[in-house]
This record gives sequence, structure tokens and C-alpha cells, in this order.
Amino acid sequence: MISKIPVAILGSTGAVGQRLVSLLFDHPWFEPVLLCASERSAGRSYAEAADWFLPETLPAKAAAMTVAGCTPDLRVPLVFSALDADAAAKAEAEWARAGILVVSNTRCYRMDATVPLVIPEVNGDHLALLRNRVWPGRGGIVTNPNCSTIGLVLALKPLFDAFGIQAVQAVTMQAASGAGYPGVPAIDLIDNIVPYIGGEEDKLETEPLKILGRYQAGASGEPGSIQPASLPISASCYRVPVLDGHSLAVSLRLGRKAKPEDIIAAWQEFRGQTAGLDLPSAPQRPLLYLSAPNRPQPRLDRLTGGGMTVCIGRLRPCPVLDWKFAVLSHNTIRGAAGGTILLAELCVRQGYLK
Amino acid sequence: MISKIPVAILGSTGAVGQRLVSLLFDHPWFEPVLLCASERSAGRSYAEAADWFLPETLPAKAAAMTVAGCTPDLRVPLVFSALDADAAAKAEAEWARAGILVVSNTRCYRMDATVPLVIPEVNGDHLALLRNRVWPGRGGIVTNPNCSTIGLVLALKPLFDAFGIQAVQAVTMQAASGAGYPGVPAIDLIDNIVPYIGGEEDKLETEPLKILGRYQAGASGEPGSIQPASLPISASCYRVPVLDGHSLAVSLRLGRKAKPEDIIAAWQEFRGQTAGLDLPSAPQRPLLYLSAPNRPQPRLDRLTGGGMTVCIGRLRPCPVLDWKFAVLSHNTIRGAAGGTILLAELCVRQGYLK
Amino acid sequence: MISKIPVAILGSTGAVGQRLVSLLFDHPWFEPVLLCASERSAGRSYAEAADWFLPETLPAKAAAMTVAGCTPDLRVPLVFSALDADAAAKAEAEWARAGILVVSNTRCYRMDATVPLVIPEVNGDHLALLRNRVWPGRGGIVTNPNCSTIGLVLALKPLFDAFGIQAVQAVTMQAASGAGYPGVPAIDLIDNIVPYIGGEEDKLETEPLKILGRYQAGASGEPGSIQPASLPISASCYRVPVLDGHSLAVSLRLGRKAKPEDIIAAWQEFRGQTAGLDLPSAPQRPLLYLSAPNRPQPRLDRLTGGGMTVCIGRLRPCPVLDWKFAVLSHNTIRGAAGGTILLAELCVRQGYLK
Amino acid sequence: MISKIPVAILGSTGAVGQRLVSLLFDHPWFEPVLLCASERSAGRSYAEAADWFLPETLPAKAAAMTVAGCTPDLRVPLVFSALDADAAAKAEAEWARAGILVVSNTRCYRMDATVPLVIPEVNGDHLALLRNRVWPGRGGIVTNPNCSTIGLVLALKPLFDAFGIQAVQAVTMQAASGAGYPGVPAIDLIDNIVPYIGGEEDKLETEPLKILGRYQAGASGEPGSIQPASLPISASCYRVPVLDGHSLAVSLRLGRKAKPEDIIAAWQEFRGQTAGLDLPSAPQRPLLYLSAPNRPQPRLDRLTGGGMTVCIGRLRPCPVLDWKFAVLSHNTIRGAAGGTILLAELCVRQGYLK
Repeated sequence: MISKIPVAILGSTGAVGQRLVSLLFDHPWFEPVLLCASERSAGRSYAEAADWFLPETLPAKAAAMTVAGCTPDLRVPLVFSALDADAAAKAEAEWARAGILVVSNTRCYRMDATVPLVIPEVNGDHLALLRNRVWPGRGGIVTNPNCSTIGLVLALKPLFDAFGIQAVQAVTMQAASGAGYPGVPAIDLIDNIVPYIGGEEDKLETEPLKILGRYQAGASGEPGSIQPASLPISASCYRVPVLDGHSLAVSLRLGRKAKPEDIIAAWQEFRGQTAGLDLPSAPQRPLLYLSAPNRPQPRLDRLTGGGMTVCIGRLRPCPVLDWKFAVLSHNTIRGAAGGTILLAELCVRQGYLK
Repeated sequence: MISKIPVAILGSTGAVGQRLVSLLFDHPWFEPVLLCASERSAGRSYAEAADWFLPETLPAKAAAMTVAGCTPDLRVPLVFSALDADAAAKAEAEWARAGILVVSNTRCYRMDATVPLVIPEVNGDHLALLRNRVWPGRGGIVTNPNCSTIGLVLALKPLFDAFGIQAVQAVTMQAASGAGYPGVPAIDLIDNIVPYIGGEEDKLETEPLKILGRYQAGASGEPGSIQPASLPISASCYRVPVLDGHSLAVSLRLGRKAKPEDIIAAWQEFRGQTAGLDLPSAPQRPLLYLSAPNRPQPRLDRLTGGGMTVCIGRLRPCPVLDWKFAVLSHNTIRGAAGGTILLAELCVRQGYLK
Repeated sequence: MISKIPVAILGSTGAVGQRLVSLLFDHPWFEPVLLCASERSAGRSYAEAADWFLPETLPAKAAAMTVAGCTPDLRVPLVFSALDADAAAKAEAEWARAGILVVSNTRCYRMDATVPLVIPEVNGDHLALLRNRVWPGRGGIVTNPNCSTIGLVLALKPLFDAFGIQAVQAVTMQAASGAGYPGVPAIDLIDNIVPYIGGEEDKLETEPLKILGRYQAGASGEPGSIQPASLPISASCYRVPVLDGHSLAVSLRLGRKAKPEDIIAAWQEFRGQTAGLDLPSAPQRPLLYLSAPNRPQPRLDRLTGGGMTVCIGRLRPCPVLDWKFAVLSHNTIRGAAGGTILLAELCVRQGYLK
Repeated sequence: MISKIPVAILGSTGAVGQRLVSLLFDHPWFEPVLLCASERSAGRSYAEAADWFLPETLPAKAAAMTVAGCTPDLRVPLVFSALDADAAAKAEAEWARAGILVVSNTRCYRMDATVPLVIPEVNGDHLALLRNRVWPGRGGIVTNPNCSTIGLVLALKPLFDAFGIQAVQAVTMQAASGAGYPGVPAIDLIDNIVPYIGGEEDKLETEPLKILGRYQAGASGEPGSIQPASLPISASCYRVPVLDGHSLAVSLRLGRKAKPEDIIAAWQEFRGQTAGLDLPSAPQRPLLYLSAPNRPQPRLDRLTGGGMTVCIGRLRPCPVLDWKFAVLSHNTIRGAAGGTILLAELCVRQGYLK
């Protein structure tokens, strides 16, 4: 790959946008040439417009760039979107209609039947939906799932394939950064947890079904579609005083008997649909099972595989369903910016970027 | 009640012991005359021996008392035990054998078939086990359940009675004070949660069955016994950076169909076996259902009813079992010291103190 | 006092406003009849308009009241203001001009030469400025100092009177609630402190001089004025992950030699200008010196005297100035709502309410 | 440097010991061949003996090593000590007497007149004390200062040299990891700070004087000595709920007038005595001045320069002394393990390892 692909970032000053900036400015394939944000920020330097709050240094190149508005710009064939849902619906459609591939971290189009909702290792093949060409020109939208969905589905996928899954219970304990910046007030998370995150449980109960679903090619010339998986998922979402790293307590019923060593082997051996594709952001292993009795923990394990590896631990029988275990994934890397970049890499590798 | 009942407190310098001291020194029925602790503390003033860490003021009378050792002392007919499990097995048996009623917050004897494990509102009638007189003299041991068990069982009891319960899933998010003092290191709870509490899940999966069980009187002269309830409970226990207040995310399957308003009514109307007994530590209502979508929260709701009322919220259908909801109870008041005192009050009211 | 004085609360839905509501609804002298807030909230019930976030129960009477706008209402002779500074300048002047006594927690008029800035125990006599009648009618404005200023000045006052003070260094570690609600984002206070609070250091370096100043009556008919104290104060303000309770590390140089026991005695014996006035919100003692080496601590000591007593500890020689010590005061009770109410009580007692 | 220098680590399982293990296992000069700890741990694998609590992965080589006791072992010419002070006094002397160079992070020998107390950039020349040969053989002890001292002295040194310093006031807000593991109980740091750290203020008031002192060679054959600096330092030490990173609010009086730009330039240009030595652990710059008004912050800035750069911000006039500013240093990297390694590198470079 001789020259890098010029890309834009929508919503570049927000929490996920900052992570995108942090990860993309020395990416081997992509080169951010446009940092876009709301009209309020447009025209200012990125250093001024963004209230940079990551410990990683703001890349000097980014700092000096002038923030652009969110109007489609044909200099880029690919745009990352980290817009708020309110702004995203209109903007993302505009960029797509302009013939640009939108790789989005926003919820707007995730459940749209014509839009792929993809975790590369799990259902990279769903990108075939892009061939539907429902968007004029060559543009299109690809979406990255909710930050909690990603950890859950990655942990489920090997078991889904090997044993079948009949039911899933998940209680999440989600990090503050999942709410963006400013996000949750400190007053709500000092000596406290909050048993509610608006809209989150619904996402966690529906998105996995689409992701675990099956792509069916359309009849001659007809667009393909996704046949969703069919299993009940019950989610309860809590906010906890953790900076990064969503924890999930998961119980499930399998389709057939499994021994614990087989379940662990399924996780440890899982490489998924990115195997062999040599994508720059793909971790060596998407999943890592930790045998220590008190792991995974957010502070200790969230940066495994550069924040792209989901950690699992504490597999043990569930007296109500079959098995229970603990899952941890980094919500702003694997669950947002990093996941979105990996998805864009997959689009490039699979030839969806024209 | 003209003169107060003299009582002793075992383990008076620890986390639960301090709460007992805080609550008992102006109790209308009891008067602490002995503050007992390990040999290391014995002989020192309570003010010196206890590293008092409650915001409530250390009662002046307590401060000035000389800490005693844990040898049975016949000046008291009743002793509260907040000893560590290691020390408790031997000490509690000695006090009981000496003819003293031991009301214990420790786990040692909870699952002993001859010892009542009691939440006064739920199964005060189990105190009848005390009549077994397995302990020489008139002594005996009565136990208070684990701090997480209490909130769970209080929330389950009205549904258990009204609709039957076939299965329970509970994920706990437990406060630091549940581990005593010093307990959990700060390093483990800054920007972190811990997905493991040694022994806790087992307690939560077994104690409720005994508490929800049925007392059966023995045949002529034979001791009575508890027929435990039969239902699978699955618990996953996490430690979170909260000072006081255990949160539980509960899902359950009922024995028969119920409308949400009937479930809520069952909770709101629940008064239990302490109704009409006029016990000083009994809250006006053992349960309170909060209708706000983001409640109960530890910081806001744990002191409801002086910390003796368990708060419930977020009742909604569970796609896997039938219903799910959030529970909160104060772990060192209702779940430990306050619960133990209420239990002692019930023993007195029911005539078990001779 | 047969019937209560009807009062209004401006900014009643905010952080300080909620504390005012919590404290005023069973106040022996005052009866809130108007809960005012911005136009956005006006017309809704208080329960809806306020996102109540105190552990204390929202008073039922308040919950049911309809929130009013901020236009002066002559049904009340006294109004408490907890408005944001932006809104306060205009609104408070309007209420005062309408002939109503405004007792304000806002910074707008604190340094206005014609407006009293008062800590009742310290400089209640400064209320005499109200006689200036610069406001048409009988209205006027009285202000409560900044939340950090109050703890500092209460600790300084007895030493100022007994020994003189020549210089003060203060580093504050301020609670999140001092920034109101939503206030500081959780992301900024998880595993973090912030070495900056906009405008705070300036307030702490100037307000004490006015409060410690001397009231000078005007020549015949002329208005009186405050002759400010003259001493350098250096403040450095940090935000820390504490819910309530501002901590201060103070060093100072005294005007003349003092023995530590004399300093402590000055604090312990201090009663100030409210002594003998029998004000309902006045704590038994404005100051309490704690001898334990690791006190005062926010969680343990902030509610001393119902949150109205300032705690001091760790008096020891300062190698650079003369003495150093630790101060703690409850920022939303003594430092805001409670202090404002005490100030209103003083106004009533001294006859400034006509 | 062809082959690496074999080294031992005393106290390898503790908080600082783990950092040493983390940093030394791919160090270009040193190769840990002995991981030593108390008798309790000796004989077990390091993976078992250490309750590894760093987010960085435990190096596989370390994990597999068998923990040794603390008896001197002549296979190594250099030993790092992270022992508790209790154990260190005897053990360090034994290793030194055995002819081994001890580079210690422990406080025991810091103020010993014959032992160098060194921050490489500040007073590397004090290593000349090692030539005193008070220890039999070629062994010796070199000490790293207290974790708070290091940040303070690095910030002071350029001003001390350029302008002179006449007095220093420092209030520290120290991270939990400074107390080791388990260290501070979570209960003490949830919704709380603690205004006391045993022994800490004394260290901060005395160690800097030795470090800023002047080495004076002895008369013919006589040992050299350190002439300590003479200036009053006043320290107040607080513990705050931060994981890593000690913050200091510093005020000082300079020996002569300075403009703010000159002070900042002194910091920005400071390279110190390690300049040109090409030590592997030396950061590009020991000091970094941040111009943003709300920096440095622990979470955002502690890892600057790999945790070896001390960050400074908020320079502004002090109404009492001359200037005040904020300092941040990583307490377990620059302030402990990293600082100790840099010190060992300097010893090697200066030829003190025979």
C-alpha cells in the first residue's frame, strides 16, 4: 500500500472522536485529512476546539488542523463517524449519498435492514449488504455495534457456533467514558452506581441478534438480507465509577451439553473472520480467557491486545441456565474507536472502498 | 420495660461491631455493658482499641469502657456477635453453652440445621428451632443472614408467597464496607471493580433456601426442623467502589402469571411477621418500590427507613425468565448490625430470652 | 413567633436550591411559599422540574408545588437566592428594588461596597450596611461568602482577634458538589484531581478581607462602610473526588507569639456574634478542634453540628510561617444553604426584616 | 555493552518491587537473575508469590522464576531494594557488606551522612560519597528519595540554581499506590481524603536539603561529606483517591527577583547532570511546563516521558511568598522504581560498579 487513504472524521472533538484521532494519526493505511465537528467548532484549530482529555498526547498534526464542518467532502473516499445520534442521521446519509463510505460508531442505522452491523471477527461477511447499493453512487454506511454489544457478542460467538445458544442473561457494569464527555456527573458516581442507562438495554437485547444472524444473498439481482438469530437476551445495564472498560456478568443456556474445558477452548482458539487478513488493528487474539479467580478487572485487563482483546474469566456452572462467566471489553477502543477502525480496514481489505 | 437488658458485644471493634455500638448505645431495650474483642484489644479503652470510622459520633459511654476479652460472662443474658468467622465458631458456642443467647452476624452456624437463620419479617417463626435446646442450659444461637442474602430474600418473600418462585438470577454489586475494615485495598477500587468475592456466591445460593423454608414441629418431644425451599438461585458477586449499600440486579421466574401492578402491590403491602410487634428497630415498611427509572441508587436510597428498608425499582419483563428488577439494601445496617438488633428484639418479644 | 415568615427560593432546582428546600421545609421561622426557577422549569411541579439528588427525602409539600418564574413577588418579605451568577445580577436587584430582602448565596454582589458579606458568627455587625438604603424601598441584598471562604474565615477569626494574622497560605481540596449539578464530569474525577477551579482563588484571596474588616458608621446621615482587613492571602484551589466537604491545608503567620494550647483554646471557646441569639440554624459550636492525628476527614467529620460546625485538626508549627493546620467545612450546608439560612435568621433577629 | 549485568531485586513482590520487575525485564543493561522476597514467599514461583496488580503484563520470564530469600548472593554485583523499612536496615547492610552495590528505594539510610541520597539529574555528583568506602569490600548503598521529595526537588532545582530559594511551602495530594499494597483501605478513600501520612512531612522537609546540598571532598584521604542546603520547607501531606501520581501545590520565595518567563525557561531548559550520559531510563526532559490552565492532572499527565518527566503548571504570583505552581510526578515510576533504575544506571556510567 504505497500511499495512504485520505479519511475524514465526523464528530472528531467528542469522546470517541478523540480516540479516533489518537489511533488514526499514525495508522499505516489511513491518513486523516479532515477533522469535522459541529458548526460551533468549525474554523478553530483542533487543539482549541477539542477539550483533549486522553492521557495519550494529542498528535501535533491533528492539533494544528483547522476543524471543518460536516458537509460531505469528496476529497475523501472514507469517513469515520462519531457523531451524536441526533446529528448523525442526516449527516451520515449525506456523506453516503455523496458516494463516500461511512464507517459509523453511531446507533442511527445499526438496525436498518439495508445497513451492515458488523464485528469483523464475527460477521465480516455481512458487509455483502453493501452490494445492495441502496445508496446512490458508490457510497454506503457500515455500522459498529454498541460498546456493550461488542464484548458480549465476541464472547458468545464461539459458543454460538460450537454449541448453540438458547438464552442469555447479561448484567453490565459500564464505564463512565461510555457516556461521552462531559457525560455522567461526578456527583452521580462518587460512592454510587446508577442502575439505568437510557436505551442501552434495548440495544443489548437486539443488536446481537442481527450480528449473529445469517446473510442470505438475494435472488437474481435482488438485494441480500440478514436473517437474525433467534434467542432471548435479557440485559440489565448499570453505570459504575470506572473510567474505561465495560464489565458483563453473563449467564447462558447452550444448545447442547458442553464441558468447561471445551468452552474455554472455543474461546481460546477463536480467531474469527479476520484470521489471515492481516488487518493492522486486529489483535493477535480477539478473546482471552483468564484463569485467575478474580479476573478480568477493568483496570488490570482492559488494555489487553491494545484494548482490542475481550477478556473472559470465571466460567462456572449456572444453577438456573447452564453456564456463567465474566466478560470485560474496553468500551472506547474495542467498543468504539478501535472497533470502527478495524471495521474500516475490513471494508478496504474486502474491496468495498472504490 | 422498666430496666434495660444488659448485653455484650463480641467483636465490638470491627466494622459491624462499630455499627452495633453506634446503634445500641441509645437502644430503648438493650444496654451494652461489655464490649468484647480479641486479646490484643482487651484491657484498653474502647476509644483506643477501636479505630472508629463511622461518621456518627462514638458514644461517650462506649469510648470510656474498658474492652473485655471474649470469655462468656454471665452478667448478660444476651450477646451480639460480630466476630470474624475464625474466632466465632468456638466463642459463640462457649457463650451459648454458658446459657446465654447469642445473636450472631457471623456465618459459622447459619446453615447448622439446629440453628435458626432468620430475617424477622420473613421467617421469625423459625426461632422455634431454639426450643430444640441442643445447647445445654438456656443458651442458644440465632443467626442473621449474609448481607446480600437479606436484601434479596426480603424482595423475594412477598412474590414467593403470592406467586411462587421457580428460579432466581442475581448479580450483586457490593459495597466496600461489606468486607469490613481494612477490607478491600483502595488500589483495587479506584477506577476498578472486582468480579469476585470469596465464598459470597455460595452463601447467596444457599441461605435463601433455608430462610424461605418451612418450620416443621418435631413429633412429640423431638426437635423441630426446617424444610428448605426448593428453587435454583444463581449468584454472581462483584465488589464496586461504593461505601455502603449492596445493589442487586435480579431476574426471576414466577410460579404463575402476575401483572406488574400486582408484583409492585405485593412489595408495597408487605409487612411480614414483625407486623404489630412494635419492635424498636423495625422500619415502618420493610420494602419500598421506587418508580423513578434510575432508582434505587446506593448514595440516595440506602438510608431509607433508617437503613432498614430495602428499596426496589425498575420492575420490567425479563426476556429469559419472567421479570427483572433492581434491589438495594444497606449492608451494614439492614444487612448486618441493624438486622441483628432487630432479630434480638424479636427473640425478646417472642420470649426466647429467659 | 406565632406564624411563619413566607419566603421564596430563587434557583430552587439547582444544587444549592435543593439543599435550601431540604432545610427550609420544616424550619421553625420560615415557610417557603414560592419555589422559583428558570422559565424552562416554571409551570411544572417541583418534583418534575428538580432532578432531586439528595439522600434526604424531597419534602412532600415541596414536591407538589408548582415552580414559579423569577419575577419579584410581593407576597414574601424575604427571598433566598441560589441562582447562577449569570441570572442573579439582574434578578436579585429586581427583588431588592421591589422592597424584598434578598439573602443570596451568589457571588454577584459580594464585593459590592454597599452590600454586606456576612458569616453570622464572624461579622454579623456588618449587616448595619443594610441601613444604607441604597435600594429603593425597604429591600436589600445580603450575601453569604464563597463555600471555601466560610471555612477558612471561621477558622481564622478567633486567631485574628486573639493574636492578629499577618499572612495566610491556603490550599483547598474541594468537593464535587461545590460545582453544582451536573457540575464536574465523572471522567475528570475518577483516578484524578484537578488543580484548577475557575475564579475560586480570587474569591478566597479577597472575600476574607472584607469579612474580617471593620464596619465604620457614616458621618451624620452618610452611609457606613467596611474597612477591609489588610493581610496577604494566597490560595491554591484543587477539585478532588469527594462528594461534600471542602478540606483546606492552612499555614499562617500570627501577629504575636502564641502557644499551641492557646490557639486551640481560641478555637474551642469561639462562639462569635451569634452567641445568645438562639438562632435555629446556629450550631452549638461554630468550631471544633479534633485531636486525632488524621482528622478532620470529609466523610467522617463534615456533618458535625448538622454540617454547620467547621472542624480543625493537626495544629503544628510551620517552618516557613508560624503554624499550620487542617480545616474541613461542609460546602453545601455551612458553605451554602445552611449558611444562607443562618444569615437570614440573623437578619430577622436583628430586625432587618420589615 | 555486550552482556547484561546480572541483578537481584529485594522486596520483589511488593508494590515497588512489581514496578521494578515490570521495568527491568527488558532493560538494555540489567538482567534480573534473582527475585528476592520474605521467607514466606521464598521457594514459590514469582507468579504465585506476587499478587501482580499492574496493568502491564507480568513478564513470562519473571513469572517462572523461583523467589529467593534475602540473603546476599555474590552472583550479582548490583541489587535493587524495595524492601519495607523494617526489613531493609539489616538486609541492605548485609548485601553492602558482602561487596554488592545496593540501590535502594527504602528510607532507612537516606539521611545517613555516609550514604548518597540522589536524584540523578539533580545531584549525581553526590555519588562521590561512595568513595568513602565505609562499607567493607567494594559494596555500598545508594538511596533514592521519598516519592514526594523527587517531584518537589526536580521542580525546585533549576530555580535553586538560577535564582536561589529562601523558603518553600508544599501541600501534597498523594496517590494510593504510594502506600504500597494493600496500603490504604478503600473505605478511607471513597468519598474521602485523609489529611495525614505518617512520617511523610518530615521526609519532605529534610530530604530536599541533603539533595540540594553541596558535596565537599575530604581532606587528604578523609571521606567527603554533604553540606546541606539551608532553607525552611513546610510540608502538609494528604492522601487522595488517585491511583498513581502525586500532586503538589508549591509556593516559594526566591533569592532574587525573577520574571515568570525566566522561571518557565529555567524549567523547560533544565537537563541536569544526566545530560549527555545517554542513560536508558532518563527521559528526554526531566521537567515539562504545561501552559493549559488546568494542568497537570494525574490521569492525563503522569505518564509523560514514560512516567519519568515531572510536569509543572499554573505558575502565578503568590501573595505571601513570591510564586506558586502545581507539580505532578508519577510516584511509582519517577518516584520509586524508575527513579531507582535511573540511579543504578548513573552508578554504572560513573564507574561505581566494579
